Amino acid sequence: MAGSVPRIVMKFGGTSVGDLNRIKNVAQRVKKQKEAGCAVLVVVSAMAGETDRLVSYCQEISPLYDPAEYDSIVATGEQVTSGLVALALQTMGVPSRSFAGWQVPIQTDLLHSKANLDTIDGARLLASMEKGIVPVVAGFQGVTSDKRVSTLGRGGSDTSAVALAAAIQADRCDIYTDVDGIYTSDPRIVSKARKLDKITYEEMLELASVGAKVLQTRSVGLAMRAGVRLQVLSSFIEGPAVMEGQLPGSLVVGEEEIVEKKLVTGVTCSRDEAKLSLRRIPDKPGIAAAIFGPLSAANVNVDMIVQSTGTDERTNMVFTTSKTDLPRAIRVLESVRESVQYQELAVDPDIVKVSIVGTGMRSHTGVADTMFRTLSERAINIEAISTSEIKISVLVAADYAELAVRALHTAYGLDGV
Amino acid sequence: MAGSVPRIVMKFGGTSVGDLNRIKNVAQRVKKQKEAGCAVLVVVSAMAGETDRLVSYCQEISPLYDPAEYDSIVATGEQVTSGLVALALQTMGVPSRSFAGWQVPIQTDLLHSKANLDTIDGARLLASMEKGIVPVVAGFQGVTSDKRVSTLGRGGSDTSAVALAAAIQADRCDIYTDVDGIYTSDPRIVSKARKLDKITYEEMLELASVGAKVLQTRSVGLAMRAGVRLQVLSSFIEGPAVMEGQLPGSLVVGEEEIVEKKLVTGVTCSRDEAKLSLRRIPDKPGIAAAIFGPLSAANVNVDMIVQSTGTDERTNMVFTTSKTDLPRAIRVLESVRESVQYQELAVDPDIVKVSIVGTGMRSHTGVADTMFRTLSERAINIEAISTSEIKISVLVAADYAELAVRALHTAYGLDGV
Repeated sequence: MAGSVPRIVMKFGGTSVGDLNRIKNVAQRVKKQKEAGCAVLVVVSAMAGETDRLVSYCQEISPLYDPAEYDSIVATGEQVTSGLVALALQTMGVPSRSFAGWQVPIQTDLLHSKANLDTIDGARLLASMEKGIVPVVAGFQGVTSDKRVSTLGRGGSDTSAVALAAAIQADRCDIYTDVDGIYTSDPRIVSKARKLDKITYEEMLELASVGAKVLQTRSVGLAMRAGVRLQVLSSFIEGPAVMEGQLPGSLVVGEEEIVEKKLVTGVTCSRDEAKLSLRRIPDKPGIAAAIFGPLSAANVNVDMIVQSTGTDERTNMVFTTSKTDLPRAIRVLESVRESVQYQELAVDPDIVKVSIVGTGMRSHTGVADTMFRTLSERAINIEAISTSEIKISVLVAADYAELAVRALHTAYGLDGV
Repeated sequence: MAGSVPRIVMKFGGTSVGDLNRIKNVAQRVKKQKEAGCAVLVVVSAMAGETDRLVSYCQEISPLYDPAEYDSIVATGEQVTSGLVALALQTMGVPSRSFAGWQVPIQTDLLHSKANLDTIDGARLLASMEKGIVPVVAGFQGVTSDKRVSTLGRGGSDTSAVALAAAIQADRCDIYTDVDGIYTSDPRIVSKARKLDKITYEEMLELASVGAKVLQTRSVGLAMRAGVRLQVLSSFIEGPAVMEGQLPGSLVVGEEEIVEKKLVTGVTCSRDEAKLSLRRIPDKPGIAAAIFGPLSAANVNVDMIVQSTGTDERTNMVFTTSKTDLPRAIRVLESVRESVQYQELAVDPDIVKVSIVGTGMRSHTGVADTMFRTLSERAINIEAISTSEIKISVLVAADYAELAVRALHTAYGLDGV
């Protein structure tokens, strides 16, 4: 952590810098934060739509594009935004300069278009900040050991921001987005959803993995490992500078920072899954390997698995995969029909995964019981269950999605006034 | 010059890479050139319109923008094109990769937005070319000693191409543009204008300085100093690879390469000038300094000057300046009215400067005489004259512009069949 002057990283996503007026608003917000006595480092995404435009150029020229060239083309989007934000700050009398990934430098490995961060040298950035100059860093990009531009993959700007916060030992990394924080559930489904003041890294990771799209999983994992305190807040709500003790958004922190622990922190619902059923398979050893081996080899991610015994020494295998992987999964399963000897392959995309997340589950029993009872009382049939240390997910028919989420939200005492 | 494999630089301007189809055409042309046995290096401008878009962003955010940020924003235009051309080449089976200015590196001084080239390290480019990989370099940009992106100013891609050709000791630098060569005169005025096979650097410099806009003056000067053979040719005319001995465009070379020297190579007409007349000034020593000192201090470029003696110890001073500088010139002259004591300031924008250019003038007399006689025969009044070693310019009323150009084109035997 830093000395007397708090160091804050402020990260603005694509919609927050979507046009020139929003860029001016971002600069105004940065100025306020600096005038409140903070040393500020800014990280920006490309203006909304820019990355798509550049990606479509690449795709039109070359469907199987070279990821190194793709990176050098797509990375220009963030370079433009960083320069414009620096100009806007200068116009408001705040000394500022832009940094492309290679200028920091932000070193990555050689995996173009999905590069992993290697090391970040914070020296030039800190030298700027000590002179009162606000560095505006192009997110989502870095440079490889052979001096080529790399990108971290779509949405990687959150990860850039967290890694930069770690590199300069920032007191906090504020992620400005189009929502004002992290909610107990999706407010579009649960009208009584409440904004959380604090949530643990682990909970956030589980929520991100089951449909909450506020933060990238990767950036949360990095924040947890590096101990970077994250705040999610809105870039569209006007307000004073954001100071500790009166944080307007949701803070993602370690468990030790949370005094009042709740059993369940959030209820989510993911519609990205599809259910696959293989019916009437011979129930013999090695049958699971014969199914899931080829799927894994084809890079199909399988989530929940339920095996149910049927009649006459035959069994049913039910499992879920993402809708993206579904066509590939079907191809693989059709190709193993002979060896697996199933009699029918049924596909059901009309299912959802409803999850409850909370670190309190670790030390309390009865959490699962409440979930099953609540759903049963509403006559909602559970088709599959999966659990982690701090999460329970159930598969239910899509028609029941909203009902299930609202019932659980109430059952765990999450409803606001 | 290179060894057995000819090294060719191919430079494509903004309209040549104006959309994705044109970019594919450019790649096709590069492929042909490489298949004809050349080692090729490509230099590209931004897609037509891109630079304007980025400049307008800067202007809208900050009317007095920081040129360093301006450079890092605007330079992205060429980075995108270089990546797309490299992708298009790869798709056609030609190994290729893009280079931003900092990756070459192309070192410049610190004069952001109008930087001067310092040194170019051709080693990485040559190493690529020797492996059969076509480097596609982003034109118009470089990197400063403190690792910031710089640009050479608008149109600087020609200069990049020439400097890169010098750095890799290219046999030729081909500048692809929207015209198919350099003409004896503007074909829109003189229907009998002919394309020149060859022209000297000096002639090209003079032509560029008096209205021929095919090549940037700066790039021609650099080519002359570095001994880079330039060819101007069209990127819109389909054809085979461009080989020595059958060059389709116009070659700009040293005088020693031109066997048949002509008296006059070209006739041009510039409409960028305006005439200023200060009437009835006291004819006393120091009066010229009193006029042209303040103009020079205000950065007003004065071209032709004629002083004519009037009556009663008063004189008239007539001179020209560019139409761009005109408002500034008028302000300066109004501010010195007291000290210069002129009685009237007359401004005439309806004039043109007609010029003849040719290295043959050095060794032949009578060239000027032919010019004056030809114009006199058409009753065209010459209002001012200026000369250089290989150029004669006259100022005439704008109404006579086309007539004067056509008459001179015929008089010097330049008319084609």
